[in-house]
Amino acid sequence: MQAKKKDFSEWYNEILESAELSDKRYPVKGMNIWLPYGLKAMNLIDAATRRYNEEFGIDEVSFPVLITRNQLEVEFEHLKGFEGQLYWVTRAGKDQLDVELALRPTSEAAIYPMFSLWIRNHADLPKKVFQICSVYRYETKHTRSFLRMREFRFYEAHTAHVNYEDAEKQIRDYMGIWKKLNEIFLIPNVINRRPDWDKFPGAQYSLAVDSIMPDGRTLQVATMHQYGENFSRTYDIKYSDENGEQRYVSQTTYGMSERLLGGMIGIHGDDKGLIFPPEIAPIQVIIVPIPSEKADISGFSARINERLKAAGIRSSVDTRDNYTPGWKYNYWEMKGVPVRIEVGEREVNEGRITVIIRSSKGRKTFTLAELETAIHHSISEHGRKLFENSEAVIRENVKEATTVEEMKQPFTFFAYWCGRRECSDEIERVAEKSCLGVSVSHPGKGKCIVCGADGERSMFSRTY
Amino acid sequence: MQAKKKDFSEWYNEILESAELSDKRYPVKGMNIWLPYGLKAMNLIDAATRRYNEEFGIDEVSFPVLITRNQLEVEFEHLKGFEGQLYWVTRAGKDQLDVELALRPTSEAAIYPMFSLWIRNHADLPKKVFQICSVYRYETKHTRSFLRMREFRFYEAHTAHVNYEDAEKQIRDYMGIWKKLNEIFLIPNVINRRPDWDKFPGAQYSLAVDSIMPDGRTLQVATMHQYGENFSRTYDIKYSDENGEQRYVSQTTYGMSERLLGGMIGIHGDDKGLIFPPEIAPIQVIIVPIPSEKADISGFSARINERLKAAGIRSSVDTRDNYTPGWKYNYWEMKGVPVRIEVGEREVNEGRITVIIRSSKGRKTFTLAELETAIHHSISEHGRKLFENSEAVIRENVKEATTVEEMKQPFTFFAYWCGRRECSDEIERVAEKSCLGVSVSHPGKGKCIVCGADGERSMFSRTY
Repeated sequence: MQAKKKDFSEWYNEILESAELSDKRYPVKGMNIWLPYGLKAMNLIDAATRRYNEEFGIDEVSFPVLITRNQLEVEFEHLKGFEGQLYWVTRAGKDQLDVELALRPTSEAAIYPMFSLWIRNHADLPKKVFQICSVYRYETKHTRSFLRMREFRFYEAHTAHVNYEDAEKQIRDYMGIWKKLNEIFLIPNVINRRPDWDKFPGAQYSLAVDSIMPDGRTLQVATMHQYGENFSRTYDIKYSDENGEQRYVSQTTYGMSERLLGGMIGIHGDDKGLIFPPEIAPIQVIIVPIPSEKADISGFSARINERLKAAGIRSSVDTRDNYTPGWKYNYWEMKGVPVRIEVGEREVNEGRITVIIRSSKGRKTFTLAELETAIHHSISEHGRKLFENSEAVIRENVKEATTVEEMKQPFTFFAYWCGRRECSDEIERVAEKSCLGVSVSHPGKGKCIVCGADGERSMFSRTY
Repeated sequence: MQAKKKDFSEWYNEILESAELSDKRYPVKGMNIWLPYGLKAMNLIDAATRRYNEEFGIDEVSFPVLITRNQLEVEFEHLKGFEGQLYWVTRAGKDQLDVELALRPTSEAAIYPMFSLWIRNHADLPKKVFQICSVYRYETKHTRSFLRMREFRFYEAHTAHVNYEDAEKQIRDYMGIWKKLNEIFLIPNVINRRPDWDKFPGAQYSLAVDSIMPDGRTLQVATMHQYGENFSRTYDIKYSDENGEQRYVSQTTYGMSERLLGGMIGIHGDDKGLIFPPEIAPIQVIIVPIPSEKADISGFSARINERLKAAGIRSSVDTRDNYTPGWKYNYWEMKGVPVRIEVGEREVNEGRITVIIRSSKGRKTFTLAELETAIHHSISEHGRKLFENSEAVIRENVKEATTVEEMKQPFTFFAYWCGRRECSDEIERVAEKSCLGVSVSHPGKGKCIVCGADGERSMFSRTY
């Protein structure tokens, strides 16, 4: 395995290969196959997403993958933003289609014509829906598993509100959802308001959650857009207010994708391989028997496995007999399993378990009576350790800059910025860092690092 | 609401409309939107499917939606079977594609080229995967929600084995999965071996689970195919056996779809609306408060709701204040909720609950102390009642025929059949019933109802 610090990019490619998360040999370029282990992790991410959307009153729906050219042409800015990336269905059976159909690159154009039918009255508002689906973008850039694909797993929420203020509240709800989700994902991140020239096509403004990667670059893992009335005016989404007057709704969206998984792999992993946060780990506890003829190792292993499963823990026994225990330790460390239990002759005879936590050094032993509690604690300890690591990633990789010159270093930088493109272009030119926008999570005021005018704390980095 | 017995087809359309399961006004013909209530039910079906696939050692994967023309052309019979129904992507961005890409109508052509890479050695076998995805078929027949759509939710398992016998065992496993699933779905059904001219394109033989609908017609809800070496020879899926010799694998598949939901709606519903089986009900218990100023109705309702949720029951309180209790009773009956709890002044003062089961007549009262047990029992009773109803549907709608003439009646028929197409064509001509094939679930031998030659018990019906 490549050392992660030395060449992060190579390390990432190699770990994806060994851990069997996805297979990139599928014959359509930029479209990978989700293998069982990777899909289990993604399904756990989706389950957490569903849970918190439900808690925040957003209902799950599922729209068709195909969008007519007519639907897409309604909002010109939006179409323009995506048209270079659309896959077009032009034929079905033997028929040439009268109206060409695009594979959704995102679902505004699919959902908003229906909002226009669903929303009539102020009592229909707020309307809040989300879907988890695959989206399709004909990327011209180099594709990379989980980070930039032509087909990728996508979560998108869409809401409509009586007015702009209520839509603003929804954006705060989105940040609440992100906060809860990130107690699970443990991704070091900052939230930035993208500069106007980099906002989502059709948005009034765009917030982005930027994850700090261990090589000092950033990865956008979530976005929240305030649409105001931009789409409701074009898609004709109106309601009659309490006085019977017709008004346009204000709208928002929230988007996340399989990049979350890519982010977690990149952030938490180490030179031994993957490290999964507790709630995303397909297997939370692996039990490795150390064969012996003097004790019933397999019976003992099976019994603790049953007890752990009954306690709601995703545990498994590695019963393969063609591998040594040592090989299995390495294998499951590479696969990122949070907790390992080793079962040998001594453990069986003494009625004890030996526990190793993936993210910590050393081993501990517990009595069988303590099994469930000890394992729950060990899993939590693993989570805490990842949280601390994540804080450390920010400390080590995010710096405050006072000169443009020092921004050449391979870190992500906070710097005061006046908001003008000339100044951020200068930073791009000198230090090769893109402007991620004004910081929402770490606000502050100061003089622009380039021109000295009044500015706000903003973020600059190389991006994935 | 239409009477179900009188005009089943109209009843089905109307209930779909009122229950808000899906919206068919989407601008692409034959592609509907899953609304929250319908999607919750489908997600519960999928969850059960995942559970039993895992139990039977089939791993979940997810393949891209696009399949190259080259991949599809490998197996000629298979391509021929689907080519009239394929949606073709011919352009991406501004590029005309060199190799056209089809939206998957099913995934043999996507998965088997990868099987050919994944399978090298007998130790790689059996290989068992499934996916839950949307598939695309450009249907020329009239489309209908959940029953015949151009985009529909699909489950497909694909397995590879060392030989035909091992693949046959897998087919028996599939029947085991179906049996377990149907303890949840409670669909009256029979299993038939399709006649050769009606088997899946590329299969050696096809088994189908045919559900008996209340109007005497049948609906195919699941299929299991023995492929033998048909695909492994064309897709070059080989392994080296224990002697180092190269052999072709034998393959099987198992398919189900959103038709399961359509079937459950059609079978279990009544003149008041939907009736969901316990495990598929998005809401299992609805609590309806009967407002009163003399008692804390809403506090009491909230407390029992919390207790039920804590007991793992999907319960909800209808707190809307712009509808009467009576209106709400009808509404939730129409939505098919298994159990209703009415909370009025008397219930609060006496510390009791009043319970109505959707599928039974009458009401029962229980003390608060009995709450969880009483509700668990009521939900089970509801399930038992649906099971009995399902047995009755078979008794009332499946008849044994001794003459072709009597098969004109609007039932599904068992009849002995010699296996020759001339004889089943004669039944089709006289009685307008299609041949579903030889019965696997209800086998028997007798003289062909048409020609008198030796035959097997076979099934004939009008199909959806």
